[in-house]
Amino acid sequence: MDSYLSRYNKVRKHTEDICSPLKTEDYVAQPIADVSPPKWHLAHTTWFFETFLLKEHLSNYKVFNNQFPYLFNSYYVSAGERMLRPDRGNMTRPTVEEIYQYREFVDSYMRQLLSEETSADLASVVEIGLQHEQQHQELLLYDIKYILGHNPLFPVYDQNFEEYEPDKSEHTFVKVEKGNYKIGHKGEGFSFDNEFARHEVHLEGALISSKLVTNGEYAEFIESGAYDDHQFWHSDARAWIDETGISAPLYWHKKEGAWYYYTLSGLKKIDEAAPVMHISFYEAYAFAEWKGMRIPTEFEWEVASEQLRWGKRWEYTGSAYLPYPGYKKPPGAIGEYNGKFMVNQMVLRGASVATPENHSRNTYRNFFHPHLQWQFNGIRLAKDL
Amino acid sequence: MDSYLSRYNKVRKHTEDICSPLKTEDYVAQPIADVSPPKWHLAHTTWFFETFLLKEHLSNYKVFNNQFPYLFNSYYVSAGERMLRPDRGNMTRPTVEEIYQYREFVDSYMRQLLSEETSADLASVVEIGLQHEQQHQELLLYDIKYILGHNPLFPVYDQNFEEYEPDKSEHTFVKVEKGNYKIGHKGEGFSFDNEFARHEVHLEGALISSKLVTNGEYAEFIESGAYDDHQFWHSDARAWIDETGISAPLYWHKKEGAWYYYTLSGLKKIDEAAPVMHISFYEAYAFAEWKGMRIPTEFEWEVASEQLRWGKRWEYTGSAYLPYPGYKKPPGAIGEYNGKFMVNQMVLRGASVATPENHSRNTYRNFFHPHLQWQFNGIRLAKDL
Amino acid sequence: MDSYLSRYNKVRKHTEDICSPLKTEDYVAQPIADVSPPKWHLAHTTWFFETFLLKEHLSNYKVFNNQFPYLFNSYYVSAGERMLRPDRGNMTRPTVEEIYQYREFVDSYMRQLLSEETSADLASVVEIGLQHEQQHQELLLYDIKYILGHNPLFPVYDQNFEEYEPDKSEHTFVKVEKGNYKIGHKGEGFSFDNEFARHEVHLEGALISSKLVTNGEYAEFIESGAYDDHQFWHSDARAWIDETGISAPLYWHKKEGAWYYYTLSGLKKIDEAAPVMHISFYEAYAFAEWKGMRIPTEFEWEVASEQLRWGKRWEYTGSAYLPYPGYKKPPGAIGEYNGKFMVNQMVLRGASVATPENHSRNTYRNFFHPHLQWQFNGIRLAKDL
Amino acid sequence: MDSYLSRYNKVRKHTEDICSPLKTEDYVAQPIADVSPPKWHLAHTTWFFETFLLKEHLSNYKVFNNQFPYLFNSYYVSAGERMLRPDRGNMTRPTVEEIYQYREFVDSYMRQLLSEETSADLASVVEIGLQHEQQHQELLLYDIKYILGHNPLFPVYDQNFEEYEPDKSEHTFVKVEKGNYKIGHKGEGFSFDNEFARHEVHLEGALISSKLVTNGEYAEFIESGAYDDHQFWHSDARAWIDETGISAPLYWHKKEGAWYYYTLSGLKKIDEAAPVMHISFYEAYAFAEWKGMRIPTEFEWEVASEQLRWGKRWEYTGSAYLPYPGYKKPPGAIGEYNGKFMVNQMVLRGASVATPENHSRNTYRNFFHPHLQWQFNGIRLAKDL
Repeated sequence: MDSYLSRYNKVRKHTEDICSPLKTEDYVAQPIADVSPPKWHLAHTTWFFETFLLKEHLSNYKVFNNQFPYLFNSYYVSAGERMLRPDRGNMTRPTVEEIYQYREFVDSYMRQLLSEETSADLASVVEIGLQHEQQHQELLLYDIKYILGHNPLFPVYDQNFEEYEPDKSEHTFVKVEKGNYKIGHKGEGFSFDNEFARHEVHLEGALISSKLVTNGEYAEFIESGAYDDHQFWHSDARAWIDETGISAPLYWHKKEGAWYYYTLSGLKKIDEAAPVMHISFYEAYAFAEWKGMRIPTEFEWEVASEQLRWGKRWEYTGSAYLPYPGYKKPPGAIGEYNGKFMVNQMVLRGASVATPENHSRNTYRNFFHPHLQWQFNGIRLAKDL
Repeated sequence: MDSYLSRYNKVRKHTEDICSPLKTEDYVAQPIADVSPPKWHLAHTTWFFETFLLKEHLSNYKVFNNQFPYLFNSYYVSAGERMLRPDRGNMTRPTVEEIYQYREFVDSYMRQLLSEETSADLASVVEIGLQHEQQHQELLLYDIKYILGHNPLFPVYDQNFEEYEPDKSEHTFVKVEKGNYKIGHKGEGFSFDNEFARHEVHLEGALISSKLVTNGEYAEFIESGAYDDHQFWHSDARAWIDETGISAPLYWHKKEGAWYYYTLSGLKKIDEAAPVMHISFYEAYAFAEWKGMRIPTEFEWEVASEQLRWGKRWEYTGSAYLPYPGYKKPPGAIGEYNGKFMVNQMVLRGASVATPENHSRNTYRNFFHPHLQWQFNGIRLAKDL
Repeated sequence: MDSYLSRYNKVRKHTEDICSPLKTEDYVAQPIADVSPPKWHLAHTTWFFETFLLKEHLSNYKVFNNQFPYLFNSYYVSAGERMLRPDRGNMTRPTVEEIYQYREFVDSYMRQLLSEETSADLASVVEIGLQHEQQHQELLLYDIKYILGHNPLFPVYDQNFEEYEPDKSEHTFVKVEKGNYKIGHKGEGFSFDNEFARHEVHLEGALISSKLVTNGEYAEFIESGAYDDHQFWHSDARAWIDETGISAPLYWHKKEGAWYYYTLSGLKKIDEAAPVMHISFYEAYAFAEWKGMRIPTEFEWEVASEQLRWGKRWEYTGSAYLPYPGYKKPPGAIGEYNGKFMVNQMVLRGASVATPENHSRNTYRNFFHPHLQWQFNGIRLAKDL
Repeated sequence: MDSYLSRYNKVRKHTEDICSPLKTEDYVAQPIADVSPPKWHLAHTTWFFETFLLKEHLSNYKVFNNQFPYLFNSYYVSAGERMLRPDRGNMTRPTVEEIYQYREFVDSYMRQLLSEETSADLASVVEIGLQHEQQHQELLLYDIKYILGHNPLFPVYDQNFEEYEPDKSEHTFVKVEKGNYKIGHKGEGFSFDNEFARHEVHLEGALISSKLVTNGEYAEFIESGAYDDHQFWHSDARAWIDETGISAPLYWHKKEGAWYYYTLSGLKKIDEAAPVMHISFYEAYAFAEWKGMRIPTEFEWEVASEQLRWGKRWEYTGSAYLPYPGYKKPPGAIGEYNGKFMVNQMVLRGASVATPENHSRNTYRNFFHPHLQWQFNGIRLAKDL
């Protein structure tokens, strides 16, 4: 594996590469509370290194700007006062240029720190800082798509960005036998606290679809009137539909009888063979009900994963995001990373086209509230043995 | 077991007994959307028998009033149009007297129906009707307490209603060994669809407290400043606290330095030895974190239940309300009973002082959204082996 | 004029007469914050006499219940803590019967007080108490209509209540000449502080319609598509329509192509010749714009009033509710009566079928926020000379 | 007077001068719905000339971008579909640079149009376009101050921007005698429709303060506890205070016992001698009540104006914004300019430091909803003769 210094340089550069097609104005907007302005991501990931590494491990480090911690802390309550999330989009200063200067400043000190021998303690925080920045790389793409995709001009982010790639394989089912299985991370290489403790579960057995649900299948679901048919939906989902009026995946638009969607390479007719994306858990569940099937649990998914082609979109599971048996929240601010989100959210497994290379694994647990649509997700169906 | 006729008479009478201490005015109010006016419960349970039994099985039955189905349907979307839930408290007509007439009318036809031989089909719907009414008996007491307990006069419901009984037993831990267990209903006697399929789970083992958390312990938690200490709380819980300003169980009031609470027998000083009640899941979780322990899963609870003294309050579990492997939603309106609530809610196990006799069992799964406090619940702690 | 004792008896009895057709349940509900439960009106008007007369002028008077001041104070901040307005409908206790006992209790002391010689000071407060109760008599009918009229059963309040009476007179215009006029109360007999100071205004002259706009004319306005045509509406009115979806007067329902409305004598087809009622100021203004006319100012109305047949519905004016030149707010709690409402509201002049006898006069200034529809109002048109 | 061409050039340049201290990021944000992003102002004023002049009067004019009308129309419903106001801040494209190109494009055609003889018809629309842009120049400064003033870094807009200038004159009262006066615009030179018809009013007479209320006086009002003393406030104002928690003018911050405020030249200690700014009508009214005085009507103000030193802040009047007698809304989209706002708003008279030169006069009627604080306003007191 690369040295920390070399990985640090690559990860930091990749974040800036993601932003390179943006105009200055695109860095500023926060159309909904869940979406952060790109410049906030750039600064927040930098604040993480400054706060948990430079301030701790470089004795004479002086912070770049002593108001930045207030501006760029996100949810680390232990790390001090924070600006309220929905105000991020009103923060026109510091400018994008100043934030890039902040990155450069922190990078130069980080490089100094990483050019020396790294203790195990320090290494583990650097690792988290890199993983953390990679998670924000994924979110950056979600948020950039949201900002550009809600502009009436539908600006192209990157002509060559391929959200989907054709999957010509035949449709089959992967069998998970009834029995006991070990679940969770084995402990070698990096993983998050929520992948522990590795523990045993019993599964009753299942058949897992080898392919994801396509746009074409989902369009059929819509056209069948399923959004108005209460029998497929959770009670909370009906309330969500009544309140929002949602009746299609995010970014879908109907024009003269045909479905279009906004992609990072622009607005186009939907590709019926490509896997559907940007549906909420509620919609994934309803679609499975409509098909007379279900979605797999996260345990079934993990067991079957070796036999699945996964990695282009996060896949919903029927599992609520809860601690594994033996889960221990790490102490301090880093401990706020995962544990405090373990209620009201559903687990997704896999990875997406927005996931940085080497950032996922088959024990990785992603999670979102069940109404959210802006992440790059998909639906895989399952059924009982 | 009693005949259906005899059970019908008993269950129906018990509902009216619960209401007997009420004044006419108390039947009308709906202070929050979750609380229904008592007269609505009286009519809705009656509507259930009218709709699913009399209209189906008594050929020449004519409905008591053809607007009542619209007024007293609750969430059975398949059974037709419904009045919106938050409007129930504005419905001053039909009067309480008319609703009692409606009950009498339906009862006389039901008695006629039940005096004859009952087919298995019919019996199963009668059974659900009775179980359904018993569930509303429990809710009736929650709602009555909410209505009276939010009146500045704190009216007594029943001088002799004992919400708590002293538990002088010694505190120990019940051990659940690591291993595979069968979970769910065995199939004999009544159960709800959500208790199926009986299936196997693997548990890593746990120690379950033999006693519930007391008011005294909970008061300590409050006085320690825990409501302001983010480390014990879920992120969604912090948002709930910020929005509502909640800083104690429902019905608790601090007067000149001492804690009082409203009970169905009136406002009194809290009994420190009695088990705490009226906390949300968020608070139960935070309390366990503060204690350095956790709450048991619903599976651990079910396995340990034979060795636990339970039955005076519903006990939170750390399990999200999800379908069991092999779960099948029954067809038609009855199928709306449970399945559509299987998201965003947490499971409670046990029973409460408000639960009608014979209405619970150790496989019974109760469920509520994690912010609700008005149900008669409690906290049991657990820890890993 | 009658003695205060005799008037007191009559006014108090009239309030109870208004409530006599109600069922106990009807006294309790508060479907929206603007509507108070009838039992609250009964108690609040009684609290007024208890607080400002019995407690002040009967040396050994002991209040009926020392929690009632908290429950039944409305907006007299100076007179102490109050229950929040939207909670009135949740207050099932005291019962209706207890409130009638409260009335009787206060009445007996009031009769004692009024049987003696009344000082001028005392007389002026009694007068305000009686006028205050009369204002609540009017509101009682608005609120009763709202409660019954929003019940899907559309219960009849009084078979013989005549909301409209035919006006067979010919349509003409009353001319107000350009010139200076005296406006406001002359000082003889009772009036409210907001009718002072009598002062001079200059009017440019106007023609005032001798008749009110009818249901038939208003139905034409609706059918013309005017609710969707922005040119007739204020900007704030468009926002109100977008938010509420309102597209007809309150209590109007379209069934199979025909307009019906709820009246205190039940649901019936609209009477096209009767004057329209239950429109907001926004709708009154838009209707006038649609007709190419306007509504009169409160000054034009007052000048023309002698020549107008008025008294069956409050008539909108184009005047904002503001203090007259020289207006002085009386000191103390009584001073809160009018002055603090002098912003964001529009003046109505006249009286309605719900107004108690002798309670209005041509200088009386009624006022409501421009979006409210539940009062018994109407539209009179005007145009420039 | 200058030619239209010369005035056009000056006005258009002034808008860009106002924006010259901004960073690109500052052009984008919309922290609240009332505040528009500066780039929106730049484009909207340009759209006005394009829509009402170039498209109408230059036969072969082709719009710069056919999506811009949707993006940059504001409230001219007659002129077509509009983007919803609160979405303006999410619109990162077109970029600031593209909007300056749009301005240049339209300017070049406008110069062509204005270099020829202008018909009276055309001249009147040009005039409105220029006045319209000047109104947006004023709003631009309000909005820029709001955007920068809500940034925790409190960025300076212009070190030399002087919001206040000292007024060393002695305090006196200007007397308005009882009598009839002519009010409204005489018809020479430009004016808005709402300044017509010139008409006669009768005034009872008043004394108008020669000086505005100062920051020092307002600080006393705050320190006296007046924000918590209901007697000074309208009922709607109390609700506004309860909901927002406001307890000082906008931009005021208390630090270690001293009051600071944000100004366009940065954050500084309040100048006690300078006139108070950024209070709502509710606060202006409450302050006057606290002083035992009142604020003048718009008619008193207009009559007294020749004797007043006005022009550095808009002054509240006690007059609601209503049409003058004989007011006629102009036909078409231009008619939406004023009439549709004539409800729920209060009139302000004068001008402010943000008002462009020659843009106000003593008949000019400015208007705002009574809760708004972000405009550059002040308080002048008055009392009855």
